[in-house]
Amino acid sequence: MNNFNFHNPTRIIFGKGTIAELSKHIPKKAKILLTYGGGSIKSNGVYDQVIKALKKREVLEFGGIEANPDYDTLMKAVKLVRKKKVDFLLAVGGGSVIDGTKFIAIAAPYNGKKPWNLLAKNKARDLKTALPLGTVLTLPATGSEMNNNSVISRRSKEEKFAFASELLYPVFSILDPETTFSLPLKQVRNGLVDAFVHVMEQYVTYPAGAALQDRQAEAILQTLIEISPKAMQIPPNYDARASFMWAATNALNRLIGAGVPTDWATHAIGHELTAFYGLAHAESLAVVMPYLLWYKRDKKAEKLIRYAQHVWKLRVNDPEEMISLVIEKTAAFFLSLGMPTTLTAYGIDPDEAAQRIQERFTARGTVLGEHADILPEDVAAILRMSR
Amino acid sequence: MNNFNFHNPTRIIFGKGTIAELSKHIPKKAKILLTYGGGSIKSNGVYDQVIKALKKREVLEFGGIEANPDYDTLMKAVKLVRKKKVDFLLAVGGGSVIDGTKFIAIAAPYNGKKPWNLLAKNKARDLKTALPLGTVLTLPATGSEMNNNSVISRRSKEEKFAFASELLYPVFSILDPETTFSLPLKQVRNGLVDAFVHVMEQYVTYPAGAALQDRQAEAILQTLIEISPKAMQIPPNYDARASFMWAATNALNRLIGAGVPTDWATHAIGHELTAFYGLAHAESLAVVMPYLLWYKRDKKAEKLIRYAQHVWKLRVNDPEEMISLVIEKTAAFFLSLGMPTTLTAYGIDPDEAAQRIQERFTARGTVLGEHADILPEDVAAILRMSR
Repeated sequence: MNNFNFHNPTRIIFGKGTIAELSKHIPKKAKILLTYGGGSIKSNGVYDQVIKALKKREVLEFGGIEANPDYDTLMKAVKLVRKKKVDFLLAVGGGSVIDGTKFIAIAAPYNGKKPWNLLAKNKARDLKTALPLGTVLTLPATGSEMNNNSVISRRSKEEKFAFASELLYPVFSILDPETTFSLPLKQVRNGLVDAFVHVMEQYVTYPAGAALQDRQAEAILQTLIEISPKAMQIPPNYDARASFMWAATNALNRLIGAGVPTDWATHAIGHELTAFYGLAHAESLAVVMPYLLWYKRDKKAEKLIRYAQHVWKLRVNDPEEMISLVIEKTAAFFLSLGMPTTLTAYGIDPDEAAQRIQERFTARGTVLGEHADILPEDVAAILRMSR
Repeated sequence: MNNFNFHNPTRIIFGKGTIAELSKHIPKKAKILLTYGGGSIKSNGVYDQVIKALKKREVLEFGGIEANPDYDTLMKAVKLVRKKKVDFLLAVGGGSVIDGTKFIAIAAPYNGKKPWNLLAKNKARDLKTALPLGTVLTLPATGSEMNNNSVISRRSKEEKFAFASELLYPVFSILDPETTFSLPLKQVRNGLVDAFVHVMEQYVTYPAGAALQDRQAEAILQTLIEISPKAMQIPPNYDARASFMWAATNALNRLIGAGVPTDWATHAIGHELTAFYGLAHAESLAVVMPYLLWYKRDKKAEKLIRYAQHVWKLRVNDPEEMISLVIEKTAAFFLSLGMPTTLTAYGIDPDEAAQRIQERFTARGTVLGEHADILPEDVAAILRMSR
């Protein structure tokens, strides 16, 4: 097992009706900025629950944070926060709203001239101050409600950057599974795939003597496979949605990644597909991961076989056959949720995507994977398989 | 799934050589009280590592905290803390030293006349202040290094009480698996059994639609079963000890208990066996749990069958036979580690133990179990089976 430092101070308030507790978790004299997305929280009742819970509190609002939150949008919120001297951020929504609000949290008190450098030059890492934030999660997927990561896009430059800071763990996150009941099933599907791939990136690497972490990763994968059909049911099933929500949070709260090697190549490639072609985050992962596993099947062989045995209960004598089969199983699982697994399904030319992303990674000197052996030409080879 | 509130702010610094980092995790101007047990840390090098890491810091010492830490011993440390105005506690040892230090942390700033009432009248729950504490763990077992629980004995009254407070999560815990290399194998055995039973108390109850928590519990049980033989090997195996250490922490850091019913009857009964007969904590659990599972086999049937299938991979058509078999498997696992599973193995008369504990629980009005249906006479019946 590798050495690690694990610290996750986010308080999780989980369950039916818990939005009503909101006010007591926010400092008494805080001036609050409520951030949200396209307005679905207004039609599904979550906005009303939040406002009711915050009556008598000083609350400003900033709506319109888009999926794959955009730098230019968020800088408007940063101006508002500075002008109105907001001192607590409350993100109500999914991973995009929370990620965007994390950027507001570091950019508002930042004195540098170019807040974009917080991302592009990774200056976020060294920051000493950020506004505190809390969240009310409405879309389980990214785990942002219980981690210190964020991903921000800048459409004007066709760029997308991830950043992290110890300051960005939400103080609290309220997870009420009933807030997911009004989600389009496509977003449930996206969340299931996103959470699944988060686990895979931390699990299918190489053995590191981390017996518990491997089994904890398998626990989440098995849970997602088990509850997916029920999580997609109409009308929504409370326990399945609750397990989905809690599994997605646990998929990326640093616990299963503690002390083990991690990959994240699928994410890095996927981010470029979102930047260039506008694919939803989960969609971008599903068109990359099966081919990446195939391409790196030798280096990942031991963990792929374990994954086949422990998660999918496959019993095949020939290891190569078992590996091929479990990669097919993984793609079939995504397909069973209605999630395409090829670039061509979105009308994207794999050769063009391969060329564009290879060029960008070459220019940036990007090298990916748990062995740092996925070079830009390997990325191109992986993308050309997605057809 | 039940609603829950999960918050575990303890920072874990895990791995080889991490004691060297100690100083940077303690506030700069703190006056530190280093607490420890019978002195094994002086012979195994841990004391020297701690002192080296704290050079130039102001450090007082309080040694001699016994297994099942005693109120009268700890009150001496409380006097020292008050007199010397100590403002940071550093527990170096196993669960007993950490639990004892948690009591010091709440008793030192407590203004009430009878600190015993913090335990006997459960006043610890409502406290508003406690000294901060950090730990260097040397014996994986109780999970005290990453939770807010503590158990204190008072031999002069033959009593033992558990308490908890939100203030008692250690600020940090350093877990270096190499500190376990000098442990007597009996203590490794005790730690494995303790961690195993911690999970069982939160898992073998009744189904509550908590798909992930059930699998997370199974992940820990399977890990303990898998690594136990290697964790008992001579010379010590680093990865097995590391997995043992991390599994024991995860067995009782509130994660697997979030949103599910919990039992804790085995612990409550075991505490009395320690109070009356001086059994080690883990020993007391191993002579109770198999019989408790047998006695409550109807109410726990669904989870016992799941436990048989998922953890032990048993395949038996008759459910009753499967339940009997998995209880035997559990006892056999304890025995395989050299852990007795009967009161008589310790020369304790089961009938006498049953009578004494039934009387005490009757006097206290104690009712146990996830259904609150284990009455004093049931406890007696369970104990009489342990022969």
